[in-house]
Amino acid sequence: MPNIQLFYWLDSSSVACHILLYETGLPFEAVQIQPTEESFAALRKLNPKARIPTLAIDGKVITETQAIMTAIAQLAPAKHLFGKNDLEAVRVHEWLGWLVGTFHGQAWVPVFRPERFSDDTSQHEAIRAKGLATLKELYRMLEEKVIGAYAVGDEFTAADAFLYVLFRWGSKWKIVNKRSQPNFCHAMMDFQERAAVKKVLDVEHLQAVDV
Amino acid sequence: MPNIQLFYWLDSSSVACHILLYETGLPFEAVQIQPTEESFAALRKLNPKARIPTLAIDGKVITETQAIMTAIAQLAPAKHLFGKNDLEAVRVHEWLGWLVGTFHGQAWVPVFRPERFSDDTSQHEAIRAKGLATLKELYRMLEEKVIGAYAVGDEFTAADAFLYVLFRWGSKWKIVNKRSQPNFCHAMMDFQERAAVKKVLDVEHLQAVDV
Repeated sequence: MPNIQLFYWLDSSSVACHILLYETGLPFEAVQIQPTEESFAALRKLNPKARIPTLAIDGKVITETQAIMTAIAQLAPAKHLFGKNDLEAVRVHEWLGWLVGTFHGQAWVPVFRPERFSDDTSQHEAIRAKGLATLKELYRMLEEKVIGAYAVGDEFTAADAFLYVLFRWGSKWKIVNKRSQPNFCHAMMDFQERAAVKKVLDVEHLQAVDV
Repeated sequence: MPNIQLFYWLDSSSVACHILLYETGLPFEAVQIQPTEESFAALRKLNPKARIPTLAIDGKVITETQAIMTAIAQLAPAKHLFGKNDLEAVRVHEWLGWLVGTFHGQAWVPVFRPERFSDDTSQHEAIRAKGLATLKELYRMLEEKVIGAYAVGDEFTAADAFLYVLFRWGSKWKIVNKRSQPNFCHAMMDFQERAAVKKVLDVEHLQAVDV
């Protein structure tokens, strides 16, 4: 049995990896990084990029969401967390590229951390506003693409776990609602009933989304 | 034999996928997208995100760099373009997550397209400057990580192809040079001698980098 540790940040993108780990059925330890210098110093020792999520499997440190998800999927091949065949695996990576790279990296990060895009603090509100405008367009495109219960094939994959992160953030910031995104909200409210999701909400002390 | 088309933009991140396709040894068609409304309209029909690179295999359209690279690797499993075992595949995805997501998405995109981060044109130079400052730090970290000929294992993988894109951009913008990044420059100057890289430079009419 591998020794698995997930380093997470409350209600962040690490929620997706946390869900995925519960879906494997394997035992693991979830370590919450705190907003303290001490906690970040410990994280930086493992991962010099000091980013969340970070995963360790038998002491091997793995960073970057798509790589962490790939590693978790390899731990439980029978669960098909990247789909059931080559094309489904490509589709899961395609979803994650868009969700992790564009939604999170290029739109939510400017909203959450505008200081990464300009040193001029007087401009941070304008950067945040542009991020939110980009997100409105991205969530509009997303609604057209989420037309069933699962993003890829007819079962749960890693793509759904990251969609749930974007569902939480979008509803919190009032971009996502049932009227504008009926398909997305319907899929995610069902998804939220999965045992793995309920466990993560319980462990991270998070409220379920109610749209 | 599959019918493969790569839609590329001159000297952009699509260079990495273009190299990868030549590494497979399979025949394919490379279609250059032009900076015209007509060319973009044709691209948008295939890929509503209107982003480069876009790949089509037997009419199936695949978007997002990591997914396109995964699909190309599946076409030629004997080439081990994502490494030779599960852990190497994770490491290739880890590299690509950082290179495509952080370097390109969160640092080069602000430099190339500051208008995506603020509608206030007077702020675009500040956003570009912050992107360049972030890149200096990222290339510094990169130099510590590139300690041999290949990013993962002892053979060429998809990670090297994307490193070459960042080598081209970094040298063009005078961030990368032999004095600051001796390891990276050494690995990339050797890499540039590969037949697949030479073919891409020839087809895209690009100059080889000389650092």
